[in-house]
Amino acid sequence: MLASKLYCPTLRDDPAEAEVASHKYMLKAGMIRKNASGFYSFLPLARRGVLKIEKIIREEMDKTGAQEIMMPIVQPAEIWQESGRWDVYGKEMFKLADRHGNEYCLAPTHEELITTLVRNELRSYKQLPVNLYQIQNKYRDEIRPRFGLMRSREFVMQDSYSFDTDQEGLEKSYQAMYEAYSRIFTRCGLQYRTVLADSGQIGGKHSHEFMALAASGEADIVTCTQCAYAADVEQATPNPLQAAAEPLQAIEKFATPHCSTIEDLVQAAGVPAEKTIKAVALDIDGKLVLCMVRGDHEVNEVAVQHVVGGHDATPASAELLQKYGLVPGYMSPLGAAKASEQFHILVDPTAMQIYNGVTGANEEGFHYRHVTPSRDFTGVQVAAIRLITAADGCPECGAPVQLTRGIEVGQVFQLGTKYSEALQASFLDKDGKAKPFVMGCYGIGVTRTMAAAIEQYHDERGILWPVAIAPYEAVILPLNMKDEVMVTTARELYTQLSADSSEIVLDDRPERAGVKFNDADLIGYPVQIVVGKDTKTKGTVEIKVRRTGVKEVVPVHTAVGRVQAILRELRASGQ
Amino acid sequence: MLASKLYCPTLRDDPAEAEVASHKYMLKAGMIRKNASGFYSFLPLARRGVLKIEKIIREEMDKTGAQEIMMPIVQPAEIWQESGRWDVYGKEMFKLADRHGNEYCLAPTHEELITTLVRNELRSYKQLPVNLYQIQNKYRDEIRPRFGLMRSREFVMQDSYSFDTDQEGLEKSYQAMYEAYSRIFTRCGLQYRTVLADSGQIGGKHSHEFMALAASGEADIVTCTQCAYAADVEQATPNPLQAAAEPLQAIEKFATPHCSTIEDLVQAAGVPAEKTIKAVALDIDGKLVLCMVRGDHEVNEVAVQHVVGGHDATPASAELLQKYGLVPGYMSPLGAAKASEQFHILVDPTAMQIYNGVTGANEEGFHYRHVTPSRDFTGVQVAAIRLITAADGCPECGAPVQLTRGIEVGQVFQLGTKYSEALQASFLDKDGKAKPFVMGCYGIGVTRTMAAAIEQYHDERGILWPVAIAPYEAVILPLNMKDEVMVTTARELYTQLSADSSEIVLDDRPERAGVKFNDADLIGYPVQIVVGKDTKTKGTVEIKVRRTGVKEVVPVHTAVGRVQAILRELRASGQ
Repeated sequence: MLASKLYCPTLRDDPAEAEVASHKYMLKAGMIRKNASGFYSFLPLARRGVLKIEKIIREEMDKTGAQEIMMPIVQPAEIWQESGRWDVYGKEMFKLADRHGNEYCLAPTHEELITTLVRNELRSYKQLPVNLYQIQNKYRDEIRPRFGLMRSREFVMQDSYSFDTDQEGLEKSYQAMYEAYSRIFTRCGLQYRTVLADSGQIGGKHSHEFMALAASGEADIVTCTQCAYAADVEQATPNPLQAAAEPLQAIEKFATPHCSTIEDLVQAAGVPAEKTIKAVALDIDGKLVLCMVRGDHEVNEVAVQHVVGGHDATPASAELLQKYGLVPGYMSPLGAAKASEQFHILVDPTAMQIYNGVTGANEEGFHYRHVTPSRDFTGVQVAAIRLITAADGCPECGAPVQLTRGIEVGQVFQLGTKYSEALQASFLDKDGKAKPFVMGCYGIGVTRTMAAAIEQYHDERGILWPVAIAPYEAVILPLNMKDEVMVTTARELYTQLSADSSEIVLDDRPERAGVKFNDADLIGYPVQIVVGKDTKTKGTVEIKVRRTGVKEVVPVHTAVGRVQAILRELRASGQ
Repeated sequence: MLASKLYCPTLRDDPAEAEVASHKYMLKAGMIRKNASGFYSFLPLARRGVLKIEKIIREEMDKTGAQEIMMPIVQPAEIWQESGRWDVYGKEMFKLADRHGNEYCLAPTHEELITTLVRNELRSYKQLPVNLYQIQNKYRDEIRPRFGLMRSREFVMQDSYSFDTDQEGLEKSYQAMYEAYSRIFTRCGLQYRTVLADSGQIGGKHSHEFMALAASGEADIVTCTQCAYAADVEQATPNPLQAAAEPLQAIEKFATPHCSTIEDLVQAAGVPAEKTIKAVALDIDGKLVLCMVRGDHEVNEVAVQHVVGGHDATPASAELLQKYGLVPGYMSPLGAAKASEQFHILVDPTAMQIYNGVTGANEEGFHYRHVTPSRDFTGVQVAAIRLITAADGCPECGAPVQLTRGIEVGQVFQLGTKYSEALQASFLDKDGKAKPFVMGCYGIGVTRTMAAAIEQYHDERGILWPVAIAPYEAVILPLNMKDEVMVTTARELYTQLSADSSEIVLDDRPERAGVKFNDADLIGYPVQIVVGKDTKTKGTVEIKVRRTGVKEVVPVHTAVGRVQAILRELRASGQ
């Protein structure tokens, strides 16, 4: 490709609207343009990148025996009403009506459609397992689209659905997809971790997320520094921390005016935060749940919901607290109204281990000291309800952990029979009985994967593409288009390198050397071949690897072989 | 691929809803399923076919220097309002609103979006020409979706847009696309003709359609039996027919009660239809246009509009006729009120050549005979306004023509500056002046192309795929899965043929031979390799070419080479 022909309108200035690197550089490198909030056009460079990711996905999916299909984006309301998700999705789902007034949505996902597609057609256990996938636009009416392709309203996803006869089969299908996705992200050159995840709105029991590690990620994850453990922080169950045993003292009320925070209390009571017990009151589907954790810990609402069930958790209102005799800022199980049987009290195991600690007295301006929950808390349930911290050990091996951030680029779910039961999709099993399919579903954010790669690989000058998904692999930079030797040499190199590759760009624009260097660094061609003054005087060209910055000077006649060798190395190393 | 794993739910009975062959066979062969009126899922076989067509398109488009992009399907109302098409499209456009109440459409086409995409970014004549294309779902809310993929509401299109500095450049871009499209349809194995076409709603001055010839097509086209001439019948300008000269007789009114049709008139007047002159009154944007053609000819409304301009042509109302003194059933330029200057009268040249003919007297129950328009019609405009017939000669070479039907699978348009002017998209020309882009647009119905191939190539048993777009190229049919020799032989052939091809299916299902033959013929694998009793007794297999029905029996050890040779031949011949 000749740069003079490539439609790639690079920008000189950083776009003001971009908050993250991928958004900034894709705009600046002329890869994407916004057409409306959350809706983007992919210009040639970005389209090439996406096609490369799609090709990797197809190859790895096909290897597993999964088969590609294409389902409609526009889907009838009925099947979503049948599954019960027409209303659950709420405003995140784009809805529309046709000329006859029939209702449809723009699919955010395809569980309903695929289940109705195979019901009555996949009939026998002999046909199973089946795994069907597609690569297609998906739609979510995000309340606040942002970060460019990271959170857009229209995006490309690969989604896959497996159908098995039983849980054992599902686990095999799940494992095959887990491994295929791992190979896909590895081939795309991403640094990622798989983490235990919440299955959220989609339902199901077991789920992993593929997280591209990046400071700009929206997800908090915890990873072990020693073993393979990694989880969404909300899915991590930290081990209880043991406190040194002490002689128990008698419980005692004391005045703590204006001490409604742990910081205030630590000051007032003269004890470290680890000696305090914090209360958080939640309203879960209208029911009060009082959560007790150590003062320096935070409540994990997802863990609380796993214990008590329910859908919507919000902070409890003043009215609800009053009903049960709880005093905001001074809450604890102690001194709460006798109604304690009527609401749920959860105490984290680490808080349960405290000796002679401090907690609220349910009386404005007063706390108790010398509180030992194992002695003093009654009618409570002990359950792991705190968020893991960087000070905790790995839940699996006890080694130090790291808290980091990730971009969710893929997720795998064991759905079980949620959709096959709701939509009455069954097969005849060996025993002649109709049974619901045991389903899994799997997804990769294709356009988000491209953005995540840029979040991981960039510097202050531009993108540092992994070669596997770079729009082009190499650029030839003749620094002066008026110099015949440079132009001729560059064209010859281009002809030779292009003979068996469509991955080469010749920057034949009549621009200054500085402009060419800037654009090459910005666009992030993995390899740059500089044809400059030394080509005239010494018969050499400079080959630069963009990511490492390593340069080498080679004679013109060996340049083609050397560039090919470098590209082979980059491809093999996954860089 | 093993047939036991292939998700391909074939049907035994013809689906009642299917009116055309492609719809019937795609349903029956388990290729597509309807999810809602006009919305289909593409199962693995159909998806493979579509991907093959897309690959051919990409290769041919890239050869021309066109660059692939991806624009949003969901587009903001504003750009359609700016071009004036938000309302013009009417109910054919799916519209929706987001959670904030902003209006969008599901794009039926992308002229508006691409024009706004490049405006302000394609700035100089030096950057031109540019041609950008995409392959993507398009949406049209058809009033009556039908014929399966032929007229669906969601379909895959390739659309391409060229930007040039002037008409000369546009013509070059247009020609390059015309040739690329020709190569694409040829490679897809379609029998097609390119015809001069009306540019319709999309605007612009010059257009060709690519018509796959098929009796089930919805378009009437005329082709020459000798030269390359082909046109949409509405675009064909038939040559005037000469009548033998006669001595002119004096015009004479005569009674013709209840003779408001040509058939009646021929009876009553005792003359052939070629001696009568028919009148058709049109209301074009509120103006009356009286069209005169020979009695055995039909008026071509598109041609009339080309002559007089205007947008909407409808039959003139009784009120409008009365206003100008025209009497329905007895209309002609003769005896019409003196207002004849105030309305347009068009006379087809062939009608103009009639001697001593018959036409209306604008008086209920009366006609004139011995009418010679060249003598008797005044204040009229002579213009070619009739539809061509099978009796006409080729407009180009005079040889006999054929009227036939076609499926529009592609169209190329010279748009000119319609959109660049409406959306203020300009570039700086050599002379330093801002000028609107001179644009072309080009489209291929990808999914319709697949359907059209089936319309052309099928028999009473199923599909006769062109090998280039067949979902798989060959199937191996072991006729008895309990026979060890057959199974072993079939598996060995499969292993060998699959070594360098993903195009082979092994029908390893424990089905009867009849079921396997039926499915193989229905699905239309171009080559069938039958492993049956002769394999055991004589060491041979039968190779059948599905389209021609030609069979050959070869020893097992030469079968692989022979199948590969046959496939090479089929690919080379474009069958």
